[in-house]
Amino acid sequence: MKLVSYQVENQNKFGIAKDNGIVDLTKRVDAADLKSLLAADLAQVSEFESEPVDYTFEEVTFLPVIPKPNKIFCAGVNYDDHRREVNRDKTEKPVIFFRLADSQIGHNEAILLPQESDVLDYEGEVAVIIGKPGRRIPKEQAYEHVAGYACYNDATIRDWQRHTHQWGPGKNFEGTGAFGPWMVTRDEIEDNEILTLETRLNGETLQHTTTDLMIFSIPELIHYVSSFITLVPGDVIVTGTPGGVGFKRNPQVLMKAGDVVEVEVSKLGTLRNQIKEG
Amino acid sequence: MKLVSYQVENQNKFGIAKDNGIVDLTKRVDAADLKSLLAADLAQVSEFESEPVDYTFEEVTFLPVIPKPNKIFCAGVNYDDHRREVNRDKTEKPVIFFRLADSQIGHNEAILLPQESDVLDYEGEVAVIIGKPGRRIPKEQAYEHVAGYACYNDATIRDWQRHTHQWGPGKNFEGTGAFGPWMVTRDEIEDNEILTLETRLNGETLQHTTTDLMIFSIPELIHYVSSFITLVPGDVIVTGTPGGVGFKRNPQVLMKAGDVVEVEVSKLGTLRNQIKEG
Repeated sequence: MKLVSYQVENQNKFGIAKDNGIVDLTKRVDAADLKSLLAADLAQVSEFESEPVDYTFEEVTFLPVIPKPNKIFCAGVNYDDHRREVNRDKTEKPVIFFRLADSQIGHNEAILLPQESDVLDYEGEVAVIIGKPGRRIPKEQAYEHVAGYACYNDATIRDWQRHTHQWGPGKNFEGTGAFGPWMVTRDEIEDNEILTLETRLNGETLQHTTTDLMIFSIPELIHYVSSFITLVPGDVIVTGTPGGVGFKRNPQVLMKAGDVVEVEVSKLGTLRNQIKEG
Repeated sequence: MKLVSYQVENQNKFGIAKDNGIVDLTKRVDAADLKSLLAADLAQVSEFESEPVDYTFEEVTFLPVIPKPNKIFCAGVNYDDHRREVNRDKTEKPVIFFRLADSQIGHNEAILLPQESDVLDYEGEVAVIIGKPGRRIPKEQAYEHVAGYACYNDATIRDWQRHTHQWGPGKNFEGTGAFGPWMVTRDEIEDNEILTLETRLNGETLQHTTTDLMIFSIPELIHYVSSFITLVPGDVIVTGTPGGVGFKRNPQVLMKAGDVVEVEVSKLGTLRNQIKEG
């Protein structure tokens, strides 16, 4: 099942994404948003999968899959080809930084190139969405806490990322964390299944990997972050980007207004965003 | 005026702190919490300052001053004596990292020494609470966006802070970000007024500074963080700790169960927490 957050006439809604559009769940279930639905019980909504769609995709504005996650953990340098291109030493523990919910956008929304910089780069990634709360989750039980998966573009303002040794500012400009178009629930993807991830800029493939190449696996990331804080439904773990980022290419590739960037992950779909000044 | 968030019989409330207790605002104004009150208008509550208190301090459980801030920015290495003791180079821009709301606790609540570590350290700081929203706020207008100030203990799990080059995990263990007891509204403190900050462990003074020694001033921090993301009411900027942290002392001082740590800032009061295993 694919679950989606979206707006119609400035009303926030959530629903089931089908091939030809969206079955609105907002009017069918008692939950304020997709995060609350994950906290309740997904089983209650599967009966609505066979309903006719309420909206075509053209009629809605996509929101970030989870519009206001309680927490967004990002794994840094979690593929070896990317680690080598950015000249980072291997670490014994995962590199974790945070994204603010307010930095996120949905599918088809503009990624913003801010007036403060001209060094906007893409980072295609797989996002894991938490469904079941937990603290100090053993690796062996980690997948039980996963509600589903989605594409993520952890778009980065490179010069601001490197203002100091802490990356937060360059990772949290408004309109940079693209998250969508929807999440695919865990039952449709086997635990440890190998997914293919690809990032394209104006149609040209610039990143390509498979998820078995992560340095720290999804269960290891869940175990690590839940060691320090309780995971709750709707929390997001963005699992890191592979090699091929723009600012380390020769010649360097940076995103500019009008460019179209796509992150495609097998089984998860394609997240598409155009760059705009803002 | 002093504004406070607290619980009585597991109900979240907020109010005005007076010398002898708290005037409950929850029942007097139409706002869900202190964050919402800041977004509305503080002028509407000053009339209640003269009311008799509804609760003594002994009758309530203190919550973090803002229990669920939308964003918590922390300035790192923002006093020169601390910069020298941790051997960090000067940076041209502020070092900014993030705290998660769920890592926070209130005055008198336990700071938790987790089973994952025995390297728990204090960091006494001044927190700035935002009242008026804004993006790209010029330094000259920064104070207009401040609702008030409070004491903060950015307690840190030092070994987890240094697992990798990104500090997030060691800064976000549950039960480590102590924030309170209350906020003092901006009208009681002159802009740029020099405050004295002191951290005591079991009565012994281990940090002592004045806020004019910050490397990046409060207006500079507000300008910098609002460059990348819109500040909203209830957002918190924790302004950094001075020299004297425990893990850099000789001999090293680390906090253990039963210890009592206090952060006192002139005009803001004293934030007191006991260490507990958890």
